[in-house]
Amino acid sequence: MTSYHALTEAEAIAYARSIPNLFAPDSELSSREIGDGNLNLVFHISEPSTGRSIILKQALPYAKVVGESWPLTLDRARIESEALMIHESLCSDLVPHVWAFEKELALTVMQDLSDHVIMRKGLMERNRYPLFAEHISRFLANALFYTSDLGRNQQEKKESVKQFINPELCKITEDLIFDDPYRNADTNNVPPAIMDAVEHIWNDKELHLEVAILRNSFLTNAQALLHGDLHTGSIFIKQDSTKVIDPEFAFYGPMGFDIGAVFANLLLNFAAQEGWSADVHSRADYRSYLLATVKDIWTRFEGEFRSLWNRYGVDRMSKTDGYQDWYIQQVLRDTFGYAGCKMVRRVHGLAQVADINQIEDESAKERAQRISLQLGTSLIKHHRRAVTIDEMLELADKAIN
Amino acid sequence: MTSYHALTEAEAIAYARSIPNLFAPDSELSSREIGDGNLNLVFHISEPSTGRSIILKQALPYAKVVGESWPLTLDRARIESEALMIHESLCSDLVPHVWAFEKELALTVMQDLSDHVIMRKGLMERNRYPLFAEHISRFLANALFYTSDLGRNQQEKKESVKQFINPELCKITEDLIFDDPYRNADTNNVPPAIMDAVEHIWNDKELHLEVAILRNSFLTNAQALLHGDLHTGSIFIKQDSTKVIDPEFAFYGPMGFDIGAVFANLLLNFAAQEGWSADVHSRADYRSYLLATVKDIWTRFEGEFRSLWNRYGVDRMSKTDGYQDWYIQQVLRDTFGYAGCKMVRRVHGLAQVADINQIEDESAKERAQRISLQLGTSLIKHHRRAVTIDEMLELADKAIN
Repeated sequence: MTSYHALTEAEAIAYARSIPNLFAPDSELSSREIGDGNLNLVFHISEPSTGRSIILKQALPYAKVVGESWPLTLDRARIESEALMIHESLCSDLVPHVWAFEKELALTVMQDLSDHVIMRKGLMERNRYPLFAEHISRFLANALFYTSDLGRNQQEKKESVKQFINPELCKITEDLIFDDPYRNADTNNVPPAIMDAVEHIWNDKELHLEVAILRNSFLTNAQALLHGDLHTGSIFIKQDSTKVIDPEFAFYGPMGFDIGAVFANLLLNFAAQEGWSADVHSRADYRSYLLATVKDIWTRFEGEFRSLWNRYGVDRMSKTDGYQDWYIQQVLRDTFGYAGCKMVRRVHGLAQVADINQIEDESAKERAQRISLQLGTSLIKHHRRAVTIDEMLELADKAIN
Repeated sequence: MTSYHALTEAEAIAYARSIPNLFAPDSELSSREIGDGNLNLVFHISEPSTGRSIILKQALPYAKVVGESWPLTLDRARIESEALMIHESLCSDLVPHVWAFEKELALTVMQDLSDHVIMRKGLMERNRYPLFAEHISRFLANALFYTSDLGRNQQEKKESVKQFINPELCKITEDLIFDDPYRNADTNNVPPAIMDAVEHIWNDKELHLEVAILRNSFLTNAQALLHGDLHTGSIFIKQDSTKVIDPEFAFYGPMGFDIGAVFANLLLNFAAQEGWSADVHSRADYRSYLLATVKDIWTRFEGEFRSLWNRYGVDRMSKTDGYQDWYIQQVLRDTFGYAGCKMVRRVHGLAQVADINQIEDESAKERAQRISLQLGTSLIKHHRRAVTIDEMLELADKAIN
């Protein structure tokens, strides 16, 4: 069972049984394949007699997105499991536990999180998660600080950069986030109603320069180990728990890319409130909650990051007067820019978001799309001038007024 | 002969003889060990009957600098030979040819350049090299462009970043260039006469912030494959030929670090002209030659780099309006900053330069040291504002007036 092949359910059960100290040797196990089949097989293995369950996630050697299929490295399973283990060592309550990783099979055995929901779905149901800002800001601060040159021996960090060289998955981001949405590319799915706004983006040279600058940093700036795909579909949540999953895009890149991904997806949901037929007051209220969450996340992130820096910094020179302020300013600027890029690509790029696409009223959907493009492009254009997180909230307010 | 041990001359000859198509099988070969024994053994193997000769360079498992000795990875021989081969593929006339590399022995067989002189020595004799600016700017433009995301497939480039992860050698730079000279570190060798100026540097908080920012980019910005140690002691030269040698510090870093290294060493020689007892006019004339060379190198580099970009760029998005100008501006700014760092460390850091240290007149030597510190620190402080190369020449003029 060591050379790669897609597991059957019977093999998945046998593999689960082989993991020490998990299930009783003779107990009955049942398996359900719950993946969508586009990238991975996902087996939910449970032991009815005890209620215990685990997830077996096996990478498939291809990716299917919106009908297209292309080969995709199995090495992403190694990247994912190794990143999860690093994240677990830094904030064990905020990621699923990894029981085992089998390289040949591209197979990860991890904690079952079926009692959580995907956060995108939770936000689409207009739930509020009062602990989310604390959780995600702590995840970001710890995962980014301790993998950067600030929190980790600089020579060990270089070996870790080598471990997480991830060309194929980075290529997906480079194309689908930074390139295709800004030109008339085949991969785009442009909603016909907003063709004028999209064409405006295709012709906006000021915007293109800012995107090229942001992409340059994505290509070159090995600042910290990123999750690499930290949208609300990569977060499992419930009232008292947050779990960051699926870091198969992990690599060393600019911190603002991860923070910006979280903000972009909160702001896409903010835009999507156009589709809520509730009274204006309720809609404004939920929007305020989303913006307050953005601000709360940044404020907590900055506080936690500065605190880690001051208490656990391993780099003598990081104590240089003014350096911490300069550094955090750069991270904030990147955060604005990448948040913008992450919003724009979700409106008319290859992979879009249910927050917007499931709006039934066509004119409300169109308004949500236009707000997202307006806010996304203004974040991108503002990014090199950003000074405080309040400017992000102001740009969001402007986009709906 | 495959496990590592330091070669004897007899073994060096036997190894040279084993390389196909080089020496006649039965001819007499002679060997001279010409290294300084601090880092490498260097065997000069010659065939008197034909006049043919080659160099066998074997890394030693330690480094000795100014009396200190510490263990140092043999992997640097692999890095060096692989970087040389990349450089040869890009500008074959500007690097020594590599005949063979034997990993286990950390042994590189390369072209003999005994007919050249080390450029530092040539400048100390006040020679002029009319082709140097064209040669080194072409080397820099090609070596940096074709290893960056501009000139190389971005996924292949990521694999190359992995190949050139070079923690131990980078650590030397991080400590000796960016850290120790800015504090009272044991590794420094402070000339007593300039203790006041050095103490000023140790207390200059504005300067420390700029150095921390430059070091951050050195640590994180995987822009292109650098030589990593491109001072005038790493350049063999004669009137009609320039050869860049010794890239054992090679890694992916900011382009300005290599360009700045060349400028710093021209400017250290510029400062060292204080020690020339010739008439004032001759001294000013040689200084003008050095500054004109700095400007000529930058101008040619920029022209060649833009030309490669426009003709051979592999990145569609690099054609974005304004991006090339923005990019080159960043490279220029880095060049100012790293040139400054490379000057300062050569005055009172661990490894200094003969240009200054061999000045016999103590007060002239002191003036040269003070000029170097003045110019180095002003380049560092100016770096984020630099717009044209002329500002470097103006700062140099200011430092001697």
